[in-house]
Amino acid sequence: MGRVTERRRVIRIRDGAVSTRPDTLVAEEPMEIRVGGKPLAITMRTPGDDFALAAGFLVSEGVLASADELANIVYCAGATSGGTAGPEEAESGGGGGSNSYNVVDVRLADGVPVPDISLERNVYTTSSCGLCGKASLDAVRTTARWALDTSPDTPVRIAPETLSALPDRLRAAQRVFERTGGLHAAALFTADGELLDIREDVGRHNAVDKIVGRALQQGRLPLSSAVLMVSGRASFELAQKAVMAGIPVLAAVSAPSSLAVDLAVETGLTLVGFLRGSSMNVYAGEHRIALDAAATTG
Amino acid sequence: MGRVTERRRVIRIRDGAVSTRPDTLVAEEPMEIRVGGKPLAITMRTPGDDFALAAGFLVSEGVLASADELANIVYCAGATSGGTAGPEEAESGGGGGSNSYNVVDVRLADGVPVPDISLERNVYTTSSCGLCGKASLDAVRTTARWALDTSPDTPVRIAPETLSALPDRLRAAQRVFERTGGLHAAALFTADGELLDIREDVGRHNAVDKIVGRALQQGRLPLSSAVLMVSGRASFELAQKAVMAGIPVLAAVSAPSSLAVDLAVETGLTLVGFLRGSSMNVYAGEHRIALDAAATTG
Repeated sequence: MGRVTERRRVIRIRDGAVSTRPDTLVAEEPMEIRVGGKPLAITMRTPGDDFALAAGFLVSEGVLASADELANIVYCAGATSGGTAGPEEAESGGGGGSNSYNVVDVRLADGVPVPDISLERNVYTTSSCGLCGKASLDAVRTTARWALDTSPDTPVRIAPETLSALPDRLRAAQRVFERTGGLHAAALFTADGELLDIREDVGRHNAVDKIVGRALQQGRLPLSSAVLMVSGRASFELAQKAVMAGIPVLAAVSAPSSLAVDLAVETGLTLVGFLRGSSMNVYAGEHRIALDAAATTG
Repeated sequence: MGRVTERRRVIRIRDGAVSTRPDTLVAEEPMEIRVGGKPLAITMRTPGDDFALAAGFLVSEGVLASADELANIVYCAGATSGGTAGPEEAESGGGGGSNSYNVVDVRLADGVPVPDISLERNVYTTSSCGLCGKASLDAVRTTARWALDTSPDTPVRIAPETLSALPDRLRAAQRVFERTGGLHAAALFTADGELLDIREDVGRHNAVDKIVGRALQQGRLPLSSAVLMVSGRASFELAQKAVMAGIPVLAAVSAPSSLAVDLAVETGLTLVGFLRGSSMNVYAGEHRIALDAAATTG
């Protein structure tokens, strides 16, 4: 955990008074994700849960959908973690500031297609002039391994009161934010509001990838009865990650973007924004919100 | 401006009362940036200032440093904007939701090296196991076209009181945020606190690229006497963009990351965080903050 935060000297100015003291900052370092030895992506992330981050990134990209598609994940130096085992053994082995701990190689199981290692692998890239939000929606639809749960037997239903309690639970579980004020968070809850997992990272997308990657490693995908809660805004990218992991409900403290709403409408994702106190906006998938008892006005 | 926001139906829940009404959302759409016809990057952005966004992105990547290195920028459909002229003519020409307005091709002037169109162009990617924050710092140092201003003749000096006024000025100038609650913002100020430019976008990095790109198009790079203010946190990426544009002061409402501070220390960038009310933290480059009158305590 030593690399999750770092200490730096800071000059504090308070109402004209100047003082110097050490300050705790959230750590940010580049991580290169390789597949079969070939570089696929670089992300600036908070160190920790690196194997989960790599696995979750590949779920978001449609490369992985279950633990048995993952042979193993290794740091470039050679430390190994099995695909289905807990993710922490190798990572907790230290490495400190060692460079080799910032390059992770994912080895896919036999028969799993290796993603095209080029810019063209980006699902949005086109060879023509045509590029629009619709293409982004289509890309998610064509790469998603599961439809979001719509089974009549075990419908996910969540009460507004349960949703209203999530932001406080997210904040209460954020350990690093308290020390640095500098971290985004993502948390996974049951439909009853029970906390399943929480990750913090300088990048909100990394926090979600770490949660999804851990779920993959533990054989829990698709997360068809879970609620994903994120600090801040709900972008298309976050909605995409929820859909790709089979998560039926995404809740955000702040506003969603137009394309996040469009994706939610198209895939059936329940998208809740401005979740503050006893207020919230439901942008899509309201069939999973238990509105029965609430009065309809306006 | 029609595409900067979009209307969607939303279900509002307030203390158990449910109502349905239209809501204004910030628009998010993919944009593909090409150089000489070849795809270089995709960014999810709020439409508008697309040519500036492309130009600023290439400044951040070390490809462009002045207007005369830019031949022109065109939408894939054929609308054209000169490199040194105002950026708005072609963009204001409409296009509405037309796909072709999401693909932008940048044509470099003769003799300007075309960036390597591959994953390896990413300055962080390595062929060995070594990857660390230091490599990211080195990459900025080797690609930066200017050192940040340290001339004794015209030193940038900014008073804490001036910095304290910036967040309110930023918020006052944010037009779209008020309607959607969903936009990041970046603004450029003089050392006296005068607003020079402000951009809003779903991505904070896009907002900064748009500001830098407009400055390039208008022949104002390096921005050696300006202050860049951003909503939210100060990541490595934002510090990098400030340095690449020659901006000597970066101020953020929230926390910086460790690597942002490291880059600021190495390049001489003045980095201010937690700028709230009359309080702020100075993480690097304090020689540009006019602390003379302030008492030193602690």
